[in-house]
Amino acid sequence: MRQQRLLNPTLRDVPGDAEAASHQLMLRAGLIRQLSSGIYSYLPLGLKALQHIQTIVREEMDRAGAQEMLMPALHPAELWKASGRWDVYGPELMRLEDRNGREFALGATHEEVITTLVKDEIHSYKKLPVTLYQIQTKYRDERRPRFGLLRGREFLMKDAYSFDRSTSGLDASYQAMFDAYVNIFTRCGLQFRAVEADSGAIGGTDTHEFMALADVGEDTIVHCPSCQYAANLEKATGSITNTRNSHTDLATTQPVKVHTPGVTSIKQLSQFLHIEPQHIIKSVAIQANSTPVIVLVRGDLDINEIKLKQVLGVEDIVMLSEAEIAGLGSIAGFIGPIGLSTVRLLADTSIQGLQNAVVGANEVDYHLQHVDVERDLGELNYVDVRNVGQGENCIHCGHELSFAKGIEVGHVFKLGTKYSESLGASFTDENGLSEPMIMGCYGIGVSRVLAAVIEQHQDERGIIWPNAIAPYAIHLLTVQLKDEAQLKLSEELYQTLTRAGFSVLWDDREERPGVKFNDADLLGFPLRITVGKKAGEHVVECKERRSGASYELTVEQLLPHCQSLLN
Amino acid sequence: MRQQRLLNPTLRDVPGDAEAASHQLMLRAGLIRQLSSGIYSYLPLGLKALQHIQTIVREEMDRAGAQEMLMPALHPAELWKASGRWDVYGPELMRLEDRNGREFALGATHEEVITTLVKDEIHSYKKLPVTLYQIQTKYRDERRPRFGLLRGREFLMKDAYSFDRSTSGLDASYQAMFDAYVNIFTRCGLQFRAVEADSGAIGGTDTHEFMALADVGEDTIVHCPSCQYAANLEKATGSITNTRNSHTDLATTQPVKVHTPGVTSIKQLSQFLHIEPQHIIKSVAIQANSTPVIVLVRGDLDINEIKLKQVLGVEDIVMLSEAEIAGLGSIAGFIGPIGLSTVRLLADTSIQGLQNAVVGANEVDYHLQHVDVERDLGELNYVDVRNVGQGENCIHCGHELSFAKGIEVGHVFKLGTKYSESLGASFTDENGLSEPMIMGCYGIGVSRVLAAVIEQHQDERGIIWPNAIAPYAIHLLTVQLKDEAQLKLSEELYQTLTRAGFSVLWDDREERPGVKFNDADLLGFPLRITVGKKAGEHVVECKERRSGASYELTVEQLLPHCQSLLN
Repeated sequence: MRQQRLLNPTLRDVPGDAEAASHQLMLRAGLIRQLSSGIYSYLPLGLKALQHIQTIVREEMDRAGAQEMLMPALHPAELWKASGRWDVYGPELMRLEDRNGREFALGATHEEVITTLVKDEIHSYKKLPVTLYQIQTKYRDERRPRFGLLRGREFLMKDAYSFDRSTSGLDASYQAMFDAYVNIFTRCGLQFRAVEADSGAIGGTDTHEFMALADVGEDTIVHCPSCQYAANLEKATGSITNTRNSHTDLATTQPVKVHTPGVTSIKQLSQFLHIEPQHIIKSVAIQANSTPVIVLVRGDLDINEIKLKQVLGVEDIVMLSEAEIAGLGSIAGFIGPIGLSTVRLLADTSIQGLQNAVVGANEVDYHLQHVDVERDLGELNYVDVRNVGQGENCIHCGHELSFAKGIEVGHVFKLGTKYSESLGASFTDENGLSEPMIMGCYGIGVSRVLAAVIEQHQDERGIIWPNAIAPYAIHLLTVQLKDEAQLKLSEELYQTLTRAGFSVLWDDREERPGVKFNDADLLGFPLRITVGKKAGEHVVECKERRSGASYELTVEQLLPHCQSLLN
Repeated sequence: MRQQRLLNPTLRDVPGDAEAASHQLMLRAGLIRQLSSGIYSYLPLGLKALQHIQTIVREEMDRAGAQEMLMPALHPAELWKASGRWDVYGPELMRLEDRNGREFALGATHEEVITTLVKDEIHSYKKLPVTLYQIQTKYRDERRPRFGLLRGREFLMKDAYSFDRSTSGLDASYQAMFDAYVNIFTRCGLQFRAVEADSGAIGGTDTHEFMALADVGEDTIVHCPSCQYAANLEKATGSITNTRNSHTDLATTQPVKVHTPGVTSIKQLSQFLHIEPQHIIKSVAIQANSTPVIVLVRGDLDINEIKLKQVLGVEDIVMLSEAEIAGLGSIAGFIGPIGLSTVRLLADTSIQGLQNAVVGANEVDYHLQHVDVERDLGELNYVDVRNVGQGENCIHCGHELSFAKGIEVGHVFKLGTKYSESLGASFTDENGLSEPMIMGCYGIGVSRVLAAVIEQHQDERGIIWPNAIAPYAIHLLTVQLKDEAQLKLSEELYQTLTRAGFSVLWDDREERPGVKFNDADLLGFPLRITVGKKAGEHVVECKERRSGASYELTVEQLLPHCQSLLN
């Protein structure tokens, strides 16, 4: 391709509203343009990279035995009503009516559509297992679209669905997709971790997220630097051993009331009493299925709502109002576990063994000091309902856990029979018995992968494409187009390299050399070949974008060099 | 691919609601399934064929110098309001609101989006011309979706847009696309004609439609068997020479009133007076820009509304009501050109020279006979406002015109400056002057091409794929899987042929041979290779789907034969 006519509007300046490096670079390098919030057009170079990712995804999905198909984006509302998701999906699901007033959703995922199709077309165990996938545009009306392609409203996704006759079959289908994902992200050049994730309200069992490591990531990964353990924050568990605090010498035989006027937060309390937050017990009053519960967690830690819902076996949790707290005999800001004998207590393991702790006194402007959890709170069932905090240890090997930020680029999920039961997808086994199919679902955010790759592969001058995804392998740059020797050699090299199967972008623009070199760094193809002053001697300059290595080669050396470097 | 696990639900019976052969076959061969009216899922074999068409489209578009990009389906309403199409597009445009109440359209075409993008990114003549294209899903809420993929509501389209600085530049861009389309449809194996079409309200100049010839087509093509002339019915012109009718001997010197009680239609009048419809002049009272007009056309012919609008220079035409006709001094059913001196007459060329014709008398239950157009209607401006009728002659060579039915698979269109002016896409020329870009747009109904190919390539037993589009090139069929020699040879051939680069579907199902043979005919891949009784002798049977030719080959002969037949 000749750059002269390429629609590749590069920008000198970083657009103001773009925070993520990938977002900035995709705009600056002319890969994408925004049409509306969270909705983007792919310009030629951006599309090429996206297509390269699609090719990798297709090859690995096919290799794993999955079959490609293509489903519509317009979904009749009836299907989503049958699965129950029409109501629970909320405003993220985009909805419309056709000319006859029939309701449709723009597909956010395709469980309903694929399950209905498989229900209609597969009836016997003989046709199972089967894994079907598509690469297709998805719609989710994100409340806060941002970071360019990382969180968009219209985006490209690979979604796959497996149908098995047994849970062991599902395990095998799941593992095949897991392995394919490892191959895909590895081939895309991503640094990633497969982390244990929470299966949440969707009602499945195992689930892993594939996280591309990046500071801009919106997910927190907890991982052990010593063993293989990794999980996202929603799911991760760690262990805490509480030690006596420095006030132990003041130990009393019972809690002591202390006047704390207007001190209602952990932070205030910590400052007021000159103690660390981990010596305070946070008491949070919630309501689950109409029953009030007081959740106790160490003051420096946060309650994990997902874990809490699972422990309580409820779908929703509501904070108690001030009036409801008063109704329990306490007061907002001064809640504590002592003296509220009628309310259920739920203790996070982080408070186990705490001595000389501070809790609310259930009385305005008062807390209790010198609380010994075991002595004063009686028999408690300890559960894990917190986010892992700094300094916690791995439950597998005891090493201190580390934290990282990640971009969720893939997700594998054992669905079980949630959809096959609600939509009636069953099969007949050898004995003529009807059983619901056992499903898995597997997603890759294809356009998000593109952004994640750039997030990981860039420097201050621009993108540094991995070979497998680069829009072009070679950037051929002519310093002076008016120099006949340079033009002639460039034309020859363009033909030779293209014929040898390399994708070449030839910068044949009438621009100053500095502009061309800067654009070449910004666009970031693996190898830049510069035809300059030594064209007459049949010598060109090569520069490798990743290493920065720069060297001269004769024209005769060039082709073999490209073959060894790029293939 | 092994057929055992392939999601390929074939049907024995023709689905009741499928009228078109392609629709029936795509359902029977398990290529597609309907999700909702006009909305289809592509199963694995259907998608493969669709992807082969996409590859051909991409190759030819790239070869023609067009650059691929990808635009969103969600279009902000503001863009469509700026171009004026938000209001005029009507209920075919699907509309929705996002969570913040902002209006969007689901893209029916992308003129607004691409013009806005090019306006923002291209400012100088140096970056022109440029032709951009995408292969992308389109949405049109058809009033009457039908014929499967031929008229759907969600469909795959290749749309391209050219931007030039001059009309001669547009001519060249247009011709490049025209030529690319000829290549694409030829490679897809379609019998087609490029026909002159009407540029209609969109306001361009030249336009051609590419019509795949098929009886199920909804468009009528008028073409000359002698010269190259071809146009669609909306645009076609022909010539008529009127001869005196058989009543000429009754000629009078003036029209004669005849009592025709309750006779208000051409058909009734023809029967009542025992004359042919071509001896009647149809008088149609319409209103254009608030002015009444009576349009005169020969009784056997139909008024072409598009031509009529162009002749009158109006966007809308309304039929006059009975009251309005009475207000002109006439009466519905008996309108005629004589005696309505205040009303404008518009005469189609088909009435030129008519003698002894019948017209309405503008009086209830009466007509006038023996009308001589030249003698009785005075000076008329003749215009072409009719659909070409049977028996008309080519205006280029005089040969009698023929009629055919076609499926519109492609459309090339000179847009001019309609969008660049309304959306402000201009460039600066060498002299610093700002000019609007001159645009063309070019569409191919990619999914419709798939249906058109099947419409043209099938017989009573199933599909007969052209090599370039067939989901698989080879259908390998094992007669008895339990026969060890057959199984072993089949496995070997499957490996050998696949490794040689052929796409092979291996029918390894435990089905009766009759079922397999029928399915092979239905699926219609170019070459069937049957491993049967002679497997032990290393002999297989070949059958070519198109010719029906059937012959035996040794295993050694097979690979070279496949290479010469299929490559």
